Amino acid sequence: MLKNKYVLDPWSIIEDKFDSTTVVDSESVFSLGNGKIGQRGNFEEDFSGNQSIGNYISGIYYKDKTKVGWWKKGYPDYFAKMVNCPNWNTIRIEINNKILDLNKCEVFSYRRELNMMEGWCERKVKFETPEKEKIKIVSKKFICLERENIGVIKYSITSLNKKIKIKILPSIDINIKNNDANWNQPFIETIGIETNDNYSKVNSKVINSDFQIATFFKTKYFINSNEVRTTYNKSNVKNLIGSSSEFDLNTNDELSLLKIGGYVNSNDTNFDEFENLIQKELKNSIDLGFENLLNENSKAWNKIWKDSDIVIDGDIMSQQGIRFNIFQLNQTFNGNDPKLNIGPKGFTGEKYGGVTYWDTEAYCIPFYLGTKKSIVAKNLLNQRYNQLPNAILNAEKIGLNHGAALYPMVTANGEECHNEWEITFEEIHRNAAIVQAIKKYLNFTDDFEFVNKKAIKILIAISRFWSQRVNYSNDLNKYVILGVTGPNEYENNVDNNWYTNYSAKWCLEYTIETLDKILKSEINTYNKVVIGTSLEKNEIKKWKKIIDNIYLPYSK
Amino acid sequence: MLKNKYVLDPWSIIEDKFDSTTVVDSESVFSLGNGKIGQRGNFEEDFSGNQSIGNYISGIYYKDKTKVGWWKKGYPDYFAKMVNCPNWNTIRIEINNKILDLNKCEVFSYRRELNMMEGWCERKVKFETPEKEKIKIVSKKFICLERENIGVIKYSITSLNKKIKIKILPSIDINIKNNDANWNQPFIETIGIETNDNYSKVNSKVINSDFQIATFFKTKYFINSNEVRTTYNKSNVKNLIGSSSEFDLNTNDELSLLKIGGYVNSNDTNFDEFENLIQKELKNSIDLGFENLLNENSKAWNKIWKDSDIVIDGDIMSQQGIRFNIFQLNQTFNGNDPKLNIGPKGFTGEKYGGVTYWDTEAYCIPFYLGTKKSIVAKNLLNQRYNQLPNAILNAEKIGLNHGAALYPMVTANGEECHNEWEITFEEIHRNAAIVQAIKKYLNFTDDFEFVNKKAIKILIAISRFWSQRVNYSNDLNKYVILGVTGPNEYENNVDNNWYTNYSAKWCLEYTIETLDKILKSEINTYNKVVIGTSLEKNEIKKWKKIIDNIYLPYSK
Repeated sequence: MLKNKYVLDPWSIIEDKFDSTTVVDSESVFSLGNGKIGQRGNFEEDFSGNQSIGNYISGIYYKDKTKVGWWKKGYPDYFAKMVNCPNWNTIRIEINNKILDLNKCEVFSYRRELNMMEGWCERKVKFETPEKEKIKIVSKKFICLERENIGVIKYSITSLNKKIKIKILPSIDINIKNNDANWNQPFIETIGIETNDNYSKVNSKVINSDFQIATFFKTKYFINSNEVRTTYNKSNVKNLIGSSSEFDLNTNDELSLLKIGGYVNSNDTNFDEFENLIQKELKNSIDLGFENLLNENSKAWNKIWKDSDIVIDGDIMSQQGIRFNIFQLNQTFNGNDPKLNIGPKGFTGEKYGGVTYWDTEAYCIPFYLGTKKSIVAKNLLNQRYNQLPNAILNAEKIGLNHGAALYPMVTANGEECHNEWEITFEEIHRNAAIVQAIKKYLNFTDDFEFVNKKAIKILIAISRFWSQRVNYSNDLNKYVILGVTGPNEYENNVDNNWYTNYSAKWCLEYTIETLDKILKSEINTYNKVVIGTSLEKNEIKKWKKIIDNIYLPYSK
Repeated sequence: MLKNKYVLDPWSIIEDKFDSTTVVDSESVFSLGNGKIGQRGNFEEDFSGNQSIGNYISGIYYKDKTKVGWWKKGYPDYFAKMVNCPNWNTIRIEINNKILDLNKCEVFSYRRELNMMEGWCERKVKFETPEKEKIKIVSKKFICLERENIGVIKYSITSLNKKIKIKILPSIDINIKNNDANWNQPFIETIGIETNDNYSKVNSKVINSDFQIATFFKTKYFINSNEVRTTYNKSNVKNLIGSSSEFDLNTNDELSLLKIGGYVNSNDTNFDEFENLIQKELKNSIDLGFENLLNENSKAWNKIWKDSDIVIDGDIMSQQGIRFNIFQLNQTFNGNDPKLNIGPKGFTGEKYGGVTYWDTEAYCIPFYLGTKKSIVAKNLLNQRYNQLPNAILNAEKIGLNHGAALYPMVTANGEECHNEWEITFEEIHRNAAIVQAIKKYLNFTDDFEFVNKKAIKILIAISRFWSQRVNYSNDLNKYVILGVTGPNEYENNVDNNWYTNYSAKWCLEYTIETLDKILKSEINTYNKVVIGTSLEKNEIKKWKKIIDNIYLPYSK
């Protein structure tokens, strides 16, 4: 994709042509985020072409009623989906009373750069309107790494060939819906609106849940870099919350808008405290100004790269690709908040609902172990520990018992969300990914306390799952695992998938090894584990029998 | 079910207690139909308890957009569902200005009989209203076997303890929706309404289709069996199309309403001709009167029983059960219209959409072969012949070619409707049911012309399916069929299901046997078949190889 559409560059993704038909694709590529809030690379001004506005807050989700043609036993009630929030990025521009819409203009120069080294995105466009005004727009923005609730936009507009009258309406667009809604219903409702000159705020509530969010912004105007005063007229556009201002611009005068905005949410803050927190965030940032905030953010990204860059000499495409991956992992999740997890698509869109998959343990924890403090991986594993009761309920749905656990395929809070029998209840190797992540974490940290108190309980519950899920085949004189979907996630009802069978064996081995280690070092801890989990000698005996006798098919 | 809820009787289903919580169940059991139109056993008057109004026309369906959680390759666009039509049975009763609702009355005597010998249903209820009027209602109805578009109701009401004022509104209720709608949307829209004293008509159109229907009725009133004139006031209830009349009734006077109504539809009749046909139907029936129509219908049922009754002495429950089955088969389908097929639930409700399953060939054709003229089975097989091109398209969806055919799991017009991979594309033994039905038909009729011209093409297409669907296993040195759902319809992705493998072998054998028979008797016909189907010698060779070498697993 990058090969054809974007310019090769070791540190940036660069789009140097305007193509109104691929705006939606580029919106995903030019996404920005700080691990807590994030957004697609939408244009700030109106655009009548195909686009997909998206702003998301990690951990804020809607329980979307499950959609399924043929209901099967054990299907969950809902699929948790990250909420598409009111859009604080919106800036409606009117030039001589006509709404600016790039889709209706002739663009003669276009360049968008996602600078991954410094974490900002800049778009420079020159175009001619249907009324023959030649205009230049420059929009530069970033989401603050060190101010987790806000992002910053500097939006500049210059007329290149004549005097123009500009009306500008920086606003929050509340006419936003999730594209991935099962039933085309809204996920949030507006419960309060406030506009006060250059400040606006929208309070929203996630429907059928306790989640509340506030979307907010504040602005300043500059002409040719000098701050200017203006008058504010409350928006009369129903879905755009904000105030408009009007300016007469001479040829080559540059009007700039500084817009700082973002979200606070009830995962962190009581609803009553929203307003205080917002004012604090704005006070601490607006006076610093754009350049200082940009520098602060560049430094934060610099620090990330120091710990996580991978240099590939001699292959610029691979260099650009690996840095894009590292950049996205850091935009998606930063490990600061022990409540959050890693959405499969980050903030680039709604596919997969933005909630937790086994990718967290299989692919992501190794990266964060290598590039962040170990507390980050520990927090992620702690979430699985806290969700163990739900994983046990999940295994009970397929008839297992005595504390056997099947971790969910997809989850926001520990409850299974995926409703497809051959994945939900057959793609069971995901259980082994949790064990692998525990082993990696332990190898990295020697955090025996975590293992002794928490991880061992996960290991035992998962071993119980495997030991109950196998069958004994008299024909083969072996333990077999029937009816699974292997890691290709495609072939269903497979008997004795090698990877799955081997994973089962490996999990049992690692659990026994870990129990032995605990026994040898701390007999009291071992006894506590045995009592706390009602672990029986016969269980371990059966695990060993399975280890020695599991069927691992091979082609002659 | 019959055991506990209904009185044992060799010829009738009798309900002798009123239970407002099981009305929906009894509505299914007391359904009436004539193979073309049919209805659930709904009360005519208002009922505020749990009920499910249902009136259906065979062959009139809505293409309901497929609902599925996870889309898979080959899923169809829609599921065809029989349309729940406007309800011509409705009779709103007001006693002293209060709407009669059995759910709000004290019922002290109740008897409902479905008389299968004569094909009618009668309900006798005595009850006290909240206003202490003691009332008797008798409703007797049937759907005419020999007048395929109409049904007849005689609805009588008597006050047992005081003078009452009665307002009666025989009407068509247009506020009807399918319960099985995937998206809770209406399936039909009203396009015309007409009310003229004792005659009313509603024209409707099935949404996104060419199907049109008209619902209609005409009435007469009697007091103590003497016809009375009345004045008609056009209904002011939005969803009830008709005219109301008012009567003052003395104690023990019986007011009776004769209501003849039903449906005409665009499968049979051009929309322009609807009104003519309705007037003809009404003219031919209304003057005959209730008793004559009832007698005519009893005789028609008598004829059916003469050809199809099964007598079971000494076991009244089995006797009642087998007659209920025979009654339902005859209510559901009569074979008069070569365009119609056999809905799996008849007119008892909406489950399974009222469209065609492999049950037609596997279970129903043998019954109709034994009890009707052979043209009935031939018409049903002709439908499959006409739908062969769609069955070939269906097989192409799973990569087969050269005219291999997979008949749909569920269909209205030959297009597959079922959207569940493990059924749609795995429950493939249904193909063999078609072949079995052809064989049974031929054994019964010696209709070689049908076989030579049509059935042989089906046989070849199905044999091509099996011969391409098998794989050769080098381990077993046998042909195997992998990944099927057997006739238990429950276990999916089964390898070498005995029934499926045997069916494949059997179909291939029967096709070769039939080809041999044609070859021996009419060499020209044989050559025509070979050319018409591009049948190659190698194909038959491969079929024989499969017959000799298919794996038929058995337990030692």
